[in-house]
Amino acid sequence: MKAAISEFDLIARYFKRAVPAGMLGGGDDCALFSVPTGQQVATSTDLLLEGRHFFSDVDPRTLGHKALAVNLSDLAAMGALPVGCLLGLGLPDIDESWIASFADGFYDLAGRHGCALIGGDTTRSLHGITISVTVFGTVAPRRALRRSAARPGDDIWVSGVLGAADIACRMLAGTIGTDVDLLRQLRGALETPTPRVELGQALIEYAHAAIDVSDGLLQDLSHILRASGCGARLHESAIPLHPALKNLAAEPQAQAMLRQAVLAGGDLYELCFTAPVEAHAMILRLSTALNIPLSPIGSITQAPGLVVYDRAGQAISDPPSGFDHFRIG
Amino acid sequence: MKAAISEFDLIARYFKRAVPAGMLGGGDDCALFSVPTGQQVATSTDLLLEGRHFFSDVDPRTLGHKALAVNLSDLAAMGALPVGCLLGLGLPDIDESWIASFADGFYDLAGRHGCALIGGDTTRSLHGITISVTVFGTVAPRRALRRSAARPGDDIWVSGVLGAADIACRMLAGTIGTDVDLLRQLRGALETPTPRVELGQALIEYAHAAIDVSDGLLQDLSHILRASGCGARLHESAIPLHPALKNLAAEPQAQAMLRQAVLAGGDLYELCFTAPVEAHAMILRLSTALNIPLSPIGSITQAPGLVVYDRAGQAISDPPSGFDHFRIG
Repeated sequence: MKAAISEFDLIARYFKRAVPAGMLGGGDDCALFSVPTGQQVATSTDLLLEGRHFFSDVDPRTLGHKALAVNLSDLAAMGALPVGCLLGLGLPDIDESWIASFADGFYDLAGRHGCALIGGDTTRSLHGITISVTVFGTVAPRRALRRSAARPGDDIWVSGVLGAADIACRMLAGTIGTDVDLLRQLRGALETPTPRVELGQALIEYAHAAIDVSDGLLQDLSHILRASGCGARLHESAIPLHPALKNLAAEPQAQAMLRQAVLAGGDLYELCFTAPVEAHAMILRLSTALNIPLSPIGSITQAPGLVVYDRAGQAISDPPSGFDHFRIG
Repeated sequence: MKAAISEFDLIARYFKRAVPAGMLGGGDDCALFSVPTGQQVATSTDLLLEGRHFFSDVDPRTLGHKALAVNLSDLAAMGALPVGCLLGLGLPDIDESWIASFADGFYDLAGRHGCALIGGDTTRSLHGITISVTVFGTVAPRRALRRSAARPGDDIWVSGVLGAADIACRMLAGTIGTDVDLLRQLRGALETPTPRVELGQALIEYAHAAIDVSDGLLQDLSHILRASGCGARLHESAIPLHPALKNLAAEPQAQAMLRQAVLAGGDLYELCFTAPVEAHAMILRLSTALNIPLSPIGSITQAPGLVVYDRAGQAISDPPSGFDHFRIG
């Protein structure tokens, strides 16, 4: 159903749920929020474009979830507590049922993490849907999980299981054959990723550096290494694979694809973090407490360079690189 | 010159100027900034889309200026002090000289207002340029200039001079004939508007409600009226016209167009604010001190409704309405 609803009606109808006391939500020139004394504001923004980050036939509810999830993941990677968010929405036309579903997916995830939608901007776009989300969180100064904080000897950890988002994305894009049953098991990782918000906050106690692996494990880990002036070695056999991919892992012809998916697959919202060896037991306890797999996959080295050892213990000579939003071809 | 530069190189080359001590700029999952004890964060975001808010042949330096200016204007309308901003940029390809000019325009205005660029997101777009800017400022709780704070008897004021942006926009769009000399005098108002940041902060002492008139004077004033539960009367003769439009104002056939431009023309970043009558002299002194025209154009009434009186003192029966980003036709 398409209707000539005005911008103001649109906002009032779908994006004006109550905000917590002490905050000023949409409906003024700015939104207002408070920060506890002694805390800093952590903030991040992401731009999601139709045809680039999602397709026009995407389920709007999952899109609403994901648009916020990818931003919450950035707060998680700093160990910040979500406070609020802004939503910019450029739409080519107004399909009210689409917007209602998008808003539901967005608000559901926001509510789960106490991240109030306090403002935004809507406009008509000429080409496709444009989404910009900005999140705010709070974190104690000098406690945020910085990329530059890894130290030689640290264990390298990754949360969750890897490979699913990349394989699902390739099936949906048609670059590999679609196994309907397998796709059903994998696509949740791509479409409704779980940002590791509670994990990030808990890691403030134990971890040194952290990053979310949205551009692929190796590429994002390399950002930590560059910022920290360290190197790393990783053990491919220690990297946890999505359980639905285990059968595929037994097929020799699928090895290269799986290696690519695990080491370089982007659009993944797990955390990669480094922590001193002494924290090992506590981190495993945290894994149990939060019910999130946390796997040690290698260690930080003083010597620069990132070396990945394969299952036979041999260094992989040309490991796949990660996702770059601007690299052509 | 188009080149296959990566996202990371792009950011490092053009968007990594130094940020003030105590802030964490781009290069981590989140940017970090501090808020003085007892202050709230004011924030706003705007989405600017090619073909909708600007054309592909726009001067990138003025576009960089304007993308930030429209957001700083929202901080101004709350009386907030700018602190920092995030920039999301979707580009169909990479023209390095374009990006360098855009960055210069953006950073120049940011530097003038102490608004550090602390993070963002760049991505390749399939259709046209997409810009999202989010600004942060600080303001004392309960001192922010809210739309809901107008009181019956308040004077209504507007900053600057009106009409130029709308007429320039119509000349550039070809819907009215272009007078080259006149366009030269008007287009600055459209392309490099001056956000009234210092004025907004000063008005915290004197004003009740404020809004920026980016959607047109009548429409934006009506947001104040709705939020405050008041009405207003305006005097068309008191509304200050851009000096370059004075000759046009003498031509009978231009009256309707000028009325439309002044009362309903959007894309204008002046402040409309209300203040008690006792503040009249102080506001005129502020006008002199800041060298910004500030004109009393009417008053807030207890009775609802917005009445505009023409130069003959007659109520205009059907005043032009403002700009709506979604209204069709």
